Amino acid sequence: MDEVRVIEIKKSVFAANELHADDLRAELKKNKTYLLNVMSSPGSGKTTTLTRVINLLKDKFSIAVMEADIDSDVDAKTIARLTGVDAIQLHTGGMCHLDAEMTKQGLDNLNGKHYDLIILENVGNLVCPAEFDTGAVKSMTILSVPEGEDKPLKYPLMYQVCSLVVINKIDAIGIFDFDIEKVKGYIARRNPDAKVIPISAKTGENIEPLAAWIENEVNAWKED
Amino acid sequence: MDEVRVIEIKKSVFAANELHADDLRAELKKNKTYLLNVMSSPGSGKTTTLTRVINLLKDKFSIAVMEADIDSDVDAKTIARLTGVDAIQLHTGGMCHLDAEMTKQGLDNLNGKHYDLIILENVGNLVCPAEFDTGAVKSMTILSVPEGEDKPLKYPLMYQVCSLVVINKIDAIGIFDFDIEKVKGYIARRNPDAKVIPISAKTGENIEPLAAWIENEVNAWKED
Repeated sequence: MDEVRVIEIKKSVFAANELHADDLRAELKKNKTYLLNVMSSPGSGKTTTLTRVINLLKDKFSIAVMEADIDSDVDAKTIARLTGVDAIQLHTGGMCHLDAEMTKQGLDNLNGKHYDLIILENVGNLVCPAEFDTGAVKSMTILSVPEGEDKPLKYPLMYQVCSLVVINKIDAIGIFDFDIEKVKGYIARRNPDAKVIPISAKTGENIEPLAAWIENEVNAWKED
Repeated sequence: MDEVRVIEIKKSVFAANELHADDLRAELKKNKTYLLNVMSSPGSGKTTTLTRVINLLKDKFSIAVMEADIDSDVDAKTIARLTGVDAIQLHTGGMCHLDAEMTKQGLDNLNGKHYDLIILENVGNLVCPAEFDTGAVKSMTILSVPEGEDKPLKYPLMYQVCSLVVINKIDAIGIFDFDIEKVKGYIARRNPDAKVIPISAKTGENIEPLAAWIENEVNAWKED
C-alpha cells in the first residue's frame, strides 16, 4: 500500500469498557487473531521496533498494523513502506488513549482478511493508555534509554499492565547514565512477572528474542 | 530542604477551567509572581533543565518549584538538593494533567513567602496537559533529540499552546538522525511565534539564552 487509509475514531459511548474489552478478546480468540497493544512515551521507538519485528515475522504470520495518533499519518505510511504489511492510521481526534470500543472501530476498518497478528500502536503517552483495556490479548511497553531509569517509579500503572517491557536504544547506552540492572529492579517492583528485553531497533541488536516472544504468544493463542 | 513535602492533589470540581485559569493569572499579576508551566514527554529532561536554569537565576529572583507526578517524589527532591530553592511535589492521583484549580491547590501549599518565579513541572505527557490551561503566565515545552523530529506533527496542540520550545540533549545529536532546521520548520507550522532554543541540560551548553528568556519574562510581568 502506498497511500494508507486514515480512520477518524469516534469517542467511545461505552461506560463499561472492561466488559466490552472482554467481548473483543473473546471475538479475537474465536477468530484465532492475536491483538498486541504497544504503548510508550512519544519518541521511544515504537514504529522502528515494530518495523524490525514485522520483517522477522511476516513470512510466518499474516499481519496488520493499526497506528493510533492524534494527528498525522506518518507512522502507518512508514510501516506500510518498510514492511509491506497492511497498515491503517487511526486518528483519535485529540483523545489521549484508545479503549476497546475505539479499537473495535479500527478492527472493523481492516479489510476483512484473516490476520494471525494485529498490532495496535497506541497513542504515545505513559499515563492514559495504561488506564484503558483495549481488548488486546496482551500489552507491551517500550522504555528508551534516553528517557532514564526512573520511569517505572513515575508511571507505575503502565508497568503493572504490561506483560513485556522492551528497553530500546541500547546502542546509546554509552552516552546516557542508564543501568539496565537498576531499571529491571524498578520494573520488578511494579510487576515481578514482566519480561524485559533490551534491544536496539536502530541497529537491529537483539530483535530476535522479541520476535520469538511474539511468535510464541501468537502460536499459544491459536492453539489453546 | 532535605525532605520535600508531597501534596495529594484532588481532582478539580470546576467545569469552567478557562475562567478559573484567568482568575489565577490575575491573582499572580497582582502578586507580581510569574508562573511558568513546563511540559514535555516523560524523560525529555525537564528536571535537569530546570536545575540548570534555576542555578543561573536564583540570585536574581526568589524561586519555587512545584513538581507534578502521578507517583514518586524524586523530582522535587532532586530540585531541592541541587538548587536549594523551595520545591514541593504534587501527586496527581493518577490524573494525566493539571488544570488551574489543581495548580491553585499547589500554590496554596507553598509556604506563603513571596516568589518572583514559580515553575510548575507538569505531568510528563504531550497530550492532556496541553488541553488544560493551568493559569500559568506562559507555557514552554521540551523536545529532546532522541524523541525525533516528528513530534510537532503528531502532537500539534502542545506546540500551539507553548511560547517557547526547548530542544534538549543536543549533545546526543551525532548518534540520532535529528535535523534542528527541519524541526524548527515543523514547530513553525504549528506556531509561527514560538521561540526555539536548543540546549544540552547535561553539559550546560546554551543554558544562558534560556535563562535570559525567563528573566525577561519575569521582569516584564512585574513591570507592565
